[in-house]
Amino acid sequence: MGTENSRLAVSLSVVRRLTRYLRHLEELENDGISRISSQVMANQLGLTASQIRQDLNSFGGFGQQGYGYSVEYLKSNIESILGINQKSRAILIGAGNLGRALLKNVDFSKCGVTLIGVCDCKESIIGTNVDGMVIMHIDKLSEIVKLSKPQMAILAIPPASVRKIAEQLVSLGVYGIWNFTNVDLRISDPKAIVEDVHFADSLITLRYRVGQQ
Amino acid sequence: MGTENSRLAVSLSVVRRLTRYLRHLEELENDGISRISSQVMANQLGLTASQIRQDLNSFGGFGQQGYGYSVEYLKSNIESILGINQKSRAILIGAGNLGRALLKNVDFSKCGVTLIGVCDCKESIIGTNVDGMVIMHIDKLSEIVKLSKPQMAILAIPPASVRKIAEQLVSLGVYGIWNFTNVDLRISDPKAIVEDVHFADSLITLRYRVGQQ
Repeated sequence: MGTENSRLAVSLSVVRRLTRYLRHLEELENDGISRISSQVMANQLGLTASQIRQDLNSFGGFGQQGYGYSVEYLKSNIESILGINQKSRAILIGAGNLGRALLKNVDFSKCGVTLIGVCDCKESIIGTNVDGMVIMHIDKLSEIVKLSKPQMAILAIPPASVRKIAEQLVSLGVYGIWNFTNVDLRISDPKAIVEDVHFADSLITLRYRVGQQ
Repeated sequence: MGTENSRLAVSLSVVRRLTRYLRHLEELENDGISRISSQVMANQLGLTASQIRQDLNSFGGFGQQGYGYSVEYLKSNIESILGINQKSRAILIGAGNLGRALLKNVDFSKCGVTLIGVCDCKESIIGTNVDGMVIMHIDKLSEIVKLSKPQMAILAIPPASVRKIAEQLVSLGVYGIWNFTNVDLRISDPKAIVEDVHFADSLITLRYRVGQQ
């Protein structure tokens, strides 16, 4: 997921690995495991121990040679590196199947994100509730953004109006775009940050691997 | 997306880049561009030209020094490397918001996948239509799989029954699992191939990047 330019690529690949470490540490915690060595973690994640140590050492280490990492301590440190404790605000654009599925399936709070609102353009659902949030009309986007100042928007709308809405959001100061629309957003403002979720890339990869077997 | 062991990591990262090239070539084609150099493509994708040339050379090249690549020729070659022309069959498990959103948002055919059926456990929707497919009861999974022999299953169900259903699918010979459930599947059969879609990893990465700005 996500497209990045080469300048950012190094640190972003670390960020993406840190999110994997975090998810793995949560699973270990759920399984009642309190200590883990970089070697065991590497085996479980399909990485090398030196890769993991290098990633963590660049933030100060967190482990003791020969003793491994405390799962709880490492987890809370990675959370703070990733800034998950400082909540950011996001607005969901699109309350169709995909938007609703995201509301149900994503633990926003655990990702350091607070949802401040849901917008749609479908008159019949405006004012109704979805997961405890009232759906507002997309025409009110500018007012909502000015009031609640979200840093991010989640785009879960059909392709037709995506580019226009993305430009509008960025012009309002909503620079982070989580893009589920399959539309390649080329936003003119260089401050815009787009994280694409490309279902097709993932499915093609799975199909290839299954075909290779 | 996706977790892989180190043995597969090299070729899988190539596969993941090939899917990105393919998507980019489609965009170029839509924009009416018929030729592209590895350097221009590298700039647009945030990669290096030598990376792209190396990936493509390992399959025989497809370009002429100084002339760049023919967009159409390269696209059709990548499609055949990825095996998209040989259709694989998939079954969708879960016809809730997420399942329906995937039906609407994923162009299965373009990914080399034919959907053979949709299952759910919710009595009230069994027999109804979704995107032209009749929803069948999950109790019939074994019969459906024996009849239509899907190679892949798409898991878009709540966490509770995921592990049991995944084991059942793999025991029936459905080795490819596209996993949207956030459940870490540790399937006993080593032939199982799981491609996870972790929304949270992507959102945490976006949140981090926005926070860094």
